[in-house]
Amino acid sequence: MTLSRLQSEIAPAVERVLKGVLSPLNSPPSEELFQMLSYHLGWSGEGAGPKARGKRVRPLIVALCAGASGGEWQASLPAGAAVELVHNFSLIHDDIEDNSPLRRGRPTIWKLWGVPQAINAGDAMFSLANRTILDLEETASPETALEAAKLLQNTCLDLTRGQFLDLSYETRIDLTPDDYWPMVSGKTAALLRCCTELGGLVAGAGQGRREALRDFGHNLGLAFQVQDDLLGIWGEAGTTGKSVQSDLVEGKKSLPVLFGLSKGGDFAARWAEGPIQAEEVQSAAEQLAAEGAYDFTRARAAELTRKAQQALEQADLQGEHATALRELTDFLLQREM
Amino acid sequence: MTLSRLQSEIAPAVERVLKGVLSPLNSPPSEELFQMLSYHLGWSGEGAGPKARGKRVRPLIVALCAGASGGEWQASLPAGAAVELVHNFSLIHDDIEDNSPLRRGRPTIWKLWGVPQAINAGDAMFSLANRTILDLEETASPETALEAAKLLQNTCLDLTRGQFLDLSYETRIDLTPDDYWPMVSGKTAALLRCCTELGGLVAGAGQGRREALRDFGHNLGLAFQVQDDLLGIWGEAGTTGKSVQSDLVEGKKSLPVLFGLSKGGDFAARWAEGPIQAEEVQSAAEQLAAEGAYDFTRARAAELTRKAQQALEQADLQGEHATALRELTDFLLQREM
Repeated sequence: MTLSRLQSEIAPAVERVLKGVLSPLNSPPSEELFQMLSYHLGWSGEGAGPKARGKRVRPLIVALCAGASGGEWQASLPAGAAVELVHNFSLIHDDIEDNSPLRRGRPTIWKLWGVPQAINAGDAMFSLANRTILDLEETASPETALEAAKLLQNTCLDLTRGQFLDLSYETRIDLTPDDYWPMVSGKTAALLRCCTELGGLVAGAGQGRREALRDFGHNLGLAFQVQDDLLGIWGEAGTTGKSVQSDLVEGKKSLPVLFGLSKGGDFAARWAEGPIQAEEVQSAAEQLAAEGAYDFTRARAAELTRKAQQALEQADLQGEHATALRELTDFLLQREM
Repeated sequence: MTLSRLQSEIAPAVERVLKGVLSPLNSPPSEELFQMLSYHLGWSGEGAGPKARGKRVRPLIVALCAGASGGEWQASLPAGAAVELVHNFSLIHDDIEDNSPLRRGRPTIWKLWGVPQAINAGDAMFSLANRTILDLEETASPETALEAAKLLQNTCLDLTRGQFLDLSYETRIDLTPDDYWPMVSGKTAALLRCCTELGGLVAGAGQGRREALRDFGHNLGLAFQVQDDLLGIWGEAGTTGKSVQSDLVEGKKSLPVLFGLSKGGDFAARWAEGPIQAEEVQSAAEQLAAEGAYDFTRARAAELTRKAQQALEQADLQGEHATALRELTDFLLQREM
C-alpha cells in the first residue's frame, strides 16, 4: 500500500535527523545525559528496538502533509523531528507526574535514574526540540523557521494547559464531559494539529489549506483520544496492548467516566467510594454502558472521525502523499473494538 | 549613580513585558496555572513583592549590553524577558530536584502545589520563554529573532548539561576542581554569557564585540559563582542572607569543597564520613582554609574578575549604559566578605 511504501522511505530519514540532533550531546562529561535520551527514544539499553521507539507517527504526519500540499517531504524533517522530541519530552515528564513505572514496555527514565535526573533529561529533550525546529531555516526558509517556531511554542503552552487540567482533575468528582474537551484539546489534539499545520506551512500552503489541515489534525487528535478512551474500558487487551479495562482501575478521567460522573447514578456513587478493583471492572464497565456512556462515547468518536475526514477533503490534497494520509487516518481511527 | 538611574527606567519596562507575556495564560479553565507562575515571579500570593521577585539582573544586563553597544535598550526587552523566564523555569525545576522547600523566602511551587503540577508549571514557563524570544522579530528583525532563538536554545542545553553534572556529583567524592568548571559553566555562566551576547546581537554588534561580550558574560558568571562559593563557607550571614557556612551543612559541591576533596587530607576524610553538622561548621571551615582552599578559591575569584573586566574593556562599549555595566560588574563581584 501507498502508506507503508512512503513510511519505509520517511521513517529512516526521521531517525537519521533525530540521531544527528542528539549526537552533539554525546561527549564528556555529560555522555550519561545523552544515554538517558537515547534510552528513552528506544535506541539503547535493554529492550531497545522498534517497540521501544514508538511509532514516530507525528513526523510521518508532518512529512505526508508537506508532500500532499505540494512540498518536498524532506524539507519538513526538522519540523517532524522537533515535534517528535516535544512528544517525547512530554512523555518523560508525564511519566514522573503520573508515577508511571513503565513506558513502551520498559522502565521509565525516572525509575532508572531517579526523579531529579529525569526532570532534567526532559528539559534537555525540550531544548533539543526547540533548537531543531529552527533548522527549517536551511530546508525551507528563515521566515518559515520563525513561523514554525512560534507555532511549536504556542503548542507547547497548550500541552502544559492540558496537562494542568489532567492533573487537577485527579482529585475531583464534580466533572462533566464539558471538562473533557479543553483537557484533550491540549494533551492530545494540540500536537497533532501542530503536525498537520507544520506540514502545510513547510510546503508554503495558503491560509485556507493551512486552516483545513489544522482542523484535520485537531479532529484527528480528538477522535483518536475518544477512540482510545473507548478501548480503554470496552476494548480487547490484545488489540490495544493494555490490560482490559485498565483505565477504570487506573482511575483515568476519560470521556466515558466523565459522562458517568455527570449522570450521578450507580457508577458515580461507586466511583466516589474509591479506586475500582480489578475484580470489579467487568461489572463497572457494564454499569457504565447501561447508563449510556458507551453509546455517548461511540457517537462522539464517529462524529469527530467524520469531521476529521471532512477537513482532510477540504484541504484538497493531491498525489500519493494524500492517499497515504487517508490510509493513515483510517488506520488510526478504525482500530478494532 | 548611573546604574540605579538606568535600572529605574529598565526594571519597570521588563516587568511590563513579563506581565504581557503571562497574561494570555490567565483565562479559564487554566487560571490556576497562571497563578503558579505569577506566584513564582513574585507578583501574587503571600509575601509578594520586590524580595519575592528577585533582582531581575539578567534582563538588566541584556538591556545595558544592548544600549552600550549602540542599540536601543528597549529593543532588547523580549530577549531579556525570555532569559528571565528561562532562569525562573530552571529555578522551579531545580527546587524540585534539590528538594528545596524555600525560594526567595517563600515556599516553593512544589511545596504549595505538589511535584507533578510544579514540573508542569516549569514547562509552561519554559514554553513562554521560547515564545517570547521570537518577539525580537518586531523590536529588532526576523534574522535577529532567529539567531537569538538559536543562542537561547543552545544555552538551555548547556544549562541541562550543567545541572546533570551537579546532580551526578551529589553521591561522588572522587572530585577535583577540574570537575567544577564544566558544571558552573553550564549552571551559572551559560545564561550570563547568553545575556551579554544577546545584548550585542540585538544592537547589531560585529563579531569581535559579540565575542568580547560573550567572554565578559562567561567570566562574570564564573567569578560570581566562585565568589558565592567563598561567601557560602567563609562569608557573613548578614551579607549573603544565608546562614553562615550553610554550604557545608548542605553538602554543596562548591569549589573550596572540591579543592579540599582533591587534597585527600583531614577535611576529605571528614566529608567522606557523612553530612557535616551545624556545630562542626566552624572547625570544618577552618580545616578547609588550613588546607589551602580559601586562598585557592580567592585567587580564582580574583583571576576571573580580572578576566571579566578585561573582556568588558575589550568590548569597547560607550556611553552611560557602559558606565552602568561597569558599576554592575563591580557590585556583583566585590560583595563584602
